[in-house]
Amino acid sequence: MKACGLIVEYNPFHNGHNYHLEQAKAKTNADCMVAVMSGAFLQRGEPAIIDKFHRAKAALMTGIDIVVELPYVYAVQSSDLFAKGSVLTLQALGVDSICFGSESGNIDAFIKGYNDYKDNQVTYQRELKHGLHAGMSFPEASKRAYESTGLTQDGIDLSKPNNILGFSYVKTILEHKLPIQPLTIKRKNSGYHDTEITSSIASATSIRKQLFNQQTPLSELKHTMPPSTINELENYLGLATTLHNWEPYFPFLHYRVLTMSMEELALIHGIEEGLEHRIKQTAKHVTSFYDWVAAIKTKRYTWTRIQRIFVHLLTNTTKSEIDELTAPNFISYIRLIGMTKKGQEYLNKQKKQMNVPIYPKLSRNLHPMLHIEERATNAYYSILPVQNRYTLWKQELRGPVIIPS
Amino acid sequence: MKACGLIVEYNPFHNGHNYHLEQAKAKTNADCMVAVMSGAFLQRGEPAIIDKFHRAKAALMTGIDIVVELPYVYAVQSSDLFAKGSVLTLQALGVDSICFGSESGNIDAFIKGYNDYKDNQVTYQRELKHGLHAGMSFPEASKRAYESTGLTQDGIDLSKPNNILGFSYVKTILEHKLPIQPLTIKRKNSGYHDTEITSSIASATSIRKQLFNQQTPLSELKHTMPPSTINELENYLGLATTLHNWEPYFPFLHYRVLTMSMEELALIHGIEEGLEHRIKQTAKHVTSFYDWVAAIKTKRYTWTRIQRIFVHLLTNTTKSEIDELTAPNFISYIRLIGMTKKGQEYLNKQKKQMNVPIYPKLSRNLHPMLHIEERATNAYYSILPVQNRYTLWKQELRGPVIIPS
Repeated sequence: MKACGLIVEYNPFHNGHNYHLEQAKAKTNADCMVAVMSGAFLQRGEPAIIDKFHRAKAALMTGIDIVVELPYVYAVQSSDLFAKGSVLTLQALGVDSICFGSESGNIDAFIKGYNDYKDNQVTYQRELKHGLHAGMSFPEASKRAYESTGLTQDGIDLSKPNNILGFSYVKTILEHKLPIQPLTIKRKNSGYHDTEITSSIASATSIRKQLFNQQTPLSELKHTMPPSTINELENYLGLATTLHNWEPYFPFLHYRVLTMSMEELALIHGIEEGLEHRIKQTAKHVTSFYDWVAAIKTKRYTWTRIQRIFVHLLTNTTKSEIDELTAPNFISYIRLIGMTKKGQEYLNKQKKQMNVPIYPKLSRNLHPMLHIEERATNAYYSILPVQNRYTLWKQELRGPVIIPS
Repeated sequence: MKACGLIVEYNPFHNGHNYHLEQAKAKTNADCMVAVMSGAFLQRGEPAIIDKFHRAKAALMTGIDIVVELPYVYAVQSSDLFAKGSVLTLQALGVDSICFGSESGNIDAFIKGYNDYKDNQVTYQRELKHGLHAGMSFPEASKRAYESTGLTQDGIDLSKPNNILGFSYVKTILEHKLPIQPLTIKRKNSGYHDTEITSSIASATSIRKQLFNQQTPLSELKHTMPPSTINELENYLGLATTLHNWEPYFPFLHYRVLTMSMEELALIHGIEEGLEHRIKQTAKHVTSFYDWVAAIKTKRYTWTRIQRIFVHLLTNTTKSEIDELTAPNFISYIRLIGMTKKGQEYLNKQKKQMNVPIYPKLSRNLHPMLHIEERATNAYYSILPVQNRYTLWKQELRGPVIIPS
């Protein structure tokens, strides 16, 4: 059986994701579509709109065959660590290809880009350091450093978020010499950050904006998402009483910062260069999550970077945990969230040649990384009424979602 | 000027406290009544019903002349450390006597009791150790150990909470050879833990029970408290939107425990002998604060001891902080909360011969202990709407409450 890997967040699964999935199937002719998906918190430092089980189910109902969880230590990170965790997970599952969406849509440009980068690593590192020293944010400094290697002249604009991620995927595959074919599909219509819905392919950002800011009822967003997503959003709402965004976490985060010492704050992953002082100082007057990020934001500290720090604060994740757990050049286990019958068939065949265990649920004495997953999931559910927290938590202790397809 | 010291919580100030105050004045003929009062959290491990500023004001309006804060590191402790902080604070303020309420009411019995204890310390320590080893709670083991020294035969029943505290006060005064006369007044009518209101002298416990459990309006409790207390309860309600009890803190405490590692949990003050495992285990199913304490409670771990641990968890206070800050046999500063004109006159005279600074408000670069006070106050206000939190917090930055009397 041939498998194609996708790296996803599905926050939530919408028509654009479906388009990508269909294109990837057509392009690879794969028998099995494997998605590695972030859990409770996402790459840009946000809580997922609904939990991983419900997001996975929507995807499995619409053509994905296997959903596994990208560990927290990789999921809430900038592109290089995010890519490392995602690609190594898919590699452990034996996929033949990885197909990612990008603004560029040209895989040769990514590969040439990587070679240019490799030939000019010294220049890149020097320029990156220079840019950071001058007070640029990492994305800005990195983009300029890549430009200095001539990389963007061949068609990859590294200011585009999906190109940045795609470049990191290709870099991971080629650097680790993995037997995986990288493929890319040009994203259709909406930009990643677009907030207006103009067609049936809307960005996840614009869908979330409609739900939270405009209080648009789910029924009015039916043209942007497959029925399974609408179903799972409704199911989750029924079980949890709310969809997730940052604001309801503000009291917990605020309480936490106000009861931490400066030294404890400085241990949290992502807090560098004395940012703990800025976080403590601003905590004295801010009245919402949005206000707080806005009060901390500088040229160097982008909105996304601050949001990621707040996720690590909320989940109590330290630098030393992240450094230790992301250091190896392999992943230690696969956390299976759900599968179709076809996915199950693929896994049964694949298992024999896999060299990492598959965990179908949380149980005692598993890998230390799962303690962090446990904390992250608990932090994620913390805003819900207590009985609902327990109901949803129990999903972690059951076997995977299985869809008869 | 002659000063008499009282050790109080005033949670809230009621007719029983007023009776005690009047008796102490009559007994000592003091010009100035000085109260050392716990701040946000109390000796039995509970949040105060209203904040220290409003509790202090009610007392200053009814005959107290000076209110200073008992530091958190002493306030949320069993009787010996509680007494050490309280007595040393009053001593620094130069009081001539300390007058405490007790079930016994006989100061000679306390003094003889201390001498008996001193003569039999070896027996006491051996019996205490024996009792603890057999799984008794500390109060139970301590009571039995005292009995073995013959102490209770002379009229101090050390199962009574105010006798226990009183004994610790007398012990502190005599052990440190302080130039302070200990005095006691027999408590009138209601027992400490009584929950029914049967006369105009009701226990603070019964008043709080009426307010929280029976939802009795304040106006119906007017016969149990002086008008200044009713006023301050109403003022606080207006500023804060609620009175304080444990339940609204449950989500914060639960979130906190669910995002801590076992190792972090074991560092919190009061968590001993693997209790961290019991706290983590029970956190998986409890649905309220009350449930949680009930689920952890054992013969050895009393309700009060568990509540104290929860306060330290909420305020993020570690064993090493407490050990370091309570080790010296002196106190490092006086945190002045409020005073009458007469109290101000006393302090102005006394100041010259005091050897610790008086802090009239929180400001930068004060004693390290004040970082803990800051955390405790923030934790205390964390259950309030954010704007109300800031309004109330600002009291810490203003000078003391001054009552023209």
